[in-house]
Amino acid sequence: MLTTDDPLLLRHQDARGVVTLTLNRPQAFNSLSEDMLAALQKEFEALAGDESVRVVVLAAAGKAFCAGHDLKEMRAQPSLAYYQSLFAHCAKVMLAVQALPVPVIARVHAVATAAGCQLVAMCDLAVASSNARFAVSGVNLGLFCATPSVALSRNMGRKQAFEMLVTGDFISAEEAKQRGLVNRVVPLEALDAEVEKLAASIVAKPRVAIAMGKGQFYRQLEMGIGAAYQLAGQTMACNMMDDAALEGVQAFIEKRPPDWAPKAD
Amino acid sequence: MLTTDDPLLLRHQDARGVVTLTLNRPQAFNSLSEDMLAALQKEFEALAGDESVRVVVLAAAGKAFCAGHDLKEMRAQPSLAYYQSLFAHCAKVMLAVQALPVPVIARVHAVATAAGCQLVAMCDLAVASSNARFAVSGVNLGLFCATPSVALSRNMGRKQAFEMLVTGDFISAEEAKQRGLVNRVVPLEALDAEVEKLAASIVAKPRVAIAMGKGQFYRQLEMGIGAAYQLAGQTMACNMMDDAALEGVQAFIEKRPPDWAPKAD
Amino acid sequence: MLTTDDPLLLRHQDARGVVTLTLNRPQAFNSLSEDMLAALQKEFEALAGDESVRVVVLAAAGKAFCAGHDLKEMRAQPSLAYYQSLFAHCAKVMLAVQALPVPVIARVHAVATAAGCQLVAMCDLAVASSNARFAVSGVNLGLFCATPSVALSRNMGRKQAFEMLVTGDFISAEEAKQRGLVNRVVPLEALDAEVEKLAASIVAKPRVAIAMGKGQFYRQLEMGIGAAYQLAGQTMACNMMDDAALEGVQAFIEKRPPDWAPKAD
Repeated sequence: MLTTDDPLLLRHQDARGVVTLTLNRPQAFNSLSEDMLAALQKEFEALAGDESVRVVVLAAAGKAFCAGHDLKEMRAQPSLAYYQSLFAHCAKVMLAVQALPVPVIARVHAVATAAGCQLVAMCDLAVASSNARFAVSGVNLGLFCATPSVALSRNMGRKQAFEMLVTGDFISAEEAKQRGLVNRVVPLEALDAEVEKLAASIVAKPRVAIAMGKGQFYRQLEMGIGAAYQLAGQTMACNMMDDAALEGVQAFIEKRPPDWAPKAD
Repeated sequence: MLTTDDPLLLRHQDARGVVTLTLNRPQAFNSLSEDMLAALQKEFEALAGDESVRVVVLAAAGKAFCAGHDLKEMRAQPSLAYYQSLFAHCAKVMLAVQALPVPVIARVHAVATAAGCQLVAMCDLAVASSNARFAVSGVNLGLFCATPSVALSRNMGRKQAFEMLVTGDFISAEEAKQRGLVNRVVPLEALDAEVEKLAASIVAKPRVAIAMGKGQFYRQLEMGIGAAYQLAGQTMACNMMDDAALEGVQAFIEKRPPDWAPKAD
Repeated sequence: MLTTDDPLLLRHQDARGVVTLTLNRPQAFNSLSEDMLAALQKEFEALAGDESVRVVVLAAAGKAFCAGHDLKEMRAQPSLAYYQSLFAHCAKVMLAVQALPVPVIARVHAVATAAGCQLVAMCDLAVASSNARFAVSGVNLGLFCATPSVALSRNMGRKQAFEMLVTGDFISAEEAKQRGLVNRVVPLEALDAEVEKLAASIVAKPRVAIAMGKGQFYRQLEMGIGAAYQLAGQTMACNMMDDAALEGVQAFIEKRPPDWAPKAD
């Protein structure tokens, strides 16, 4: 049984460095209360500096993945300054997902709406169960999902995003995959195995290559193509000078597996 | 029977504020003559300031949706200054679609080519009948559809857009949907009903939320993600302070429909 | 039989100006050695100034389309300055594809990986045989495909690109088409015919219209929509003043084919 003492956010780390963060406020559909945002931010800050971490899986407990902001809490403090602060805080948490040096995989087992849909959009990768559904439904209450639109419109075509934003309608997991909001869709019973495939693929690569790559990936997206190539070329040259890459390329030439085991020096 | 006295642009507004603008130059496939551009611009300016308007449906009469510029008129004035002025005028009209505070839905019942295809691409939403087809065919006449390419390349992938621009080939309505140029495709006899679904969904939401949301949507698309979140957060905070949103969220908490009827004060 | 005297790059030009460049280092899976990059750059520079050229088809000999950088060569010179210079050189070649005044069609008959996949992504158009596959697999060796990510993320959705970059997994030709990396997929035996359809369509149009159009296409993609329309309007006005466009539009009005044969003046 859940009590108010249950932590809002569960953390589990396996021996490989796969960290699963589970939104654990199922009775409130894992809505992003101030406390939940603070717990996420604290966790992301800790993860950012922890070299033992290789992948983050963002999961959720209960009947929903995440229903967005906590509307009761929001409604209780009707002031512009409060709302400005709240949305700034939320944006900070969302951007922290992209700023992490390791990939973040959304494990979407059920409905994700409003800022919950935004959270999925901000993750680097997303795997959904076939029963999951997605909406940016604030407009149904008179509140256009402006901050979710930032993430959503960077995952799918503008007309597709605009339709969701003005109608508040749900799209299916399959539709979300076709549009680019999620990478893979599987039956619920296969969800963990599919997430594990991605996680296993990532932990099999050197951490530093993924970290350098992810960092430059989002930066170059916002540049003109000439500047993007300059950044990418510098990144790739630095990456190539790393021991793991030098060994990986050497192993490839010698047609053997790379030896990336930590040295006992 | 049509005469030269028929207006170029028909306007109908229903009790809910759904305005249907109908391009009414069917004998010329609704081509965008200077007079047609001027009529559109005048109408968009009027619509922009009219609080009773909630949605605009852009439709067309006759066998085509729109065949682009009026080539006879263009050919009759072969001067650089004239063409510069013409394309600047056209771009102004196209950008006015995005600048309107209400969503614009293209109702595409037939062929849309060149600037006619651009017009569809510039609308916020588009519903096409299954017989509709789309092309940017100026290149067939030696005139690359440069201004249409601006809109087209913001609706679909660059290789897909480039192929249309250099071949002049048509794509089907279904292909247009898969690429993101239109939202929905239905048989011609179901076209009005499908457009009405979108319009009805939009008029059921508060006008102010849609207006604030649409404005920020296109601005944030052109920003880096950090700046986009700042704009979106400010927008959403302002939106939340609006009476309609406060009532909508309160109603949600109380599990009742929102009361958005105009107050008799 | 291939010897070391075989040229790295084969060039064939037909009577219409369709130039086929064939990567001809099949024993090394057409990897982009320094010599291959230099050969491509030299060829692109020559093509850029040759008015007789109308289309470039980029093809490859042997079992692979292109396997990316030459890893033996790279590994032999482990210095930051060398890698910086190498990736800068490669980026210059890649950007030269977009800078050419004529369209470049990738003819992808087999596997394209890492910088080979990037090369496909940088082409204006791509036709793949159904057995072709695509990956950005450097990460498997500890070397994140940073420069390929620049091109890849401008061809498909960010989550789709990110997944390829961190897993190194292959996608099929059909998947590449759905995502926007290639335009068309056909059985291998129909590949030349399908490439020819695109080439024939392009050479049927005036060279100047395609050249002006391609140039502005990539520039406007990096602009805000207002500036993009200004550039596109100027481009289109200049294009319209060209004899080929004036004749093309006049012919359309007179319902006859355009007479674009060179004048005997």
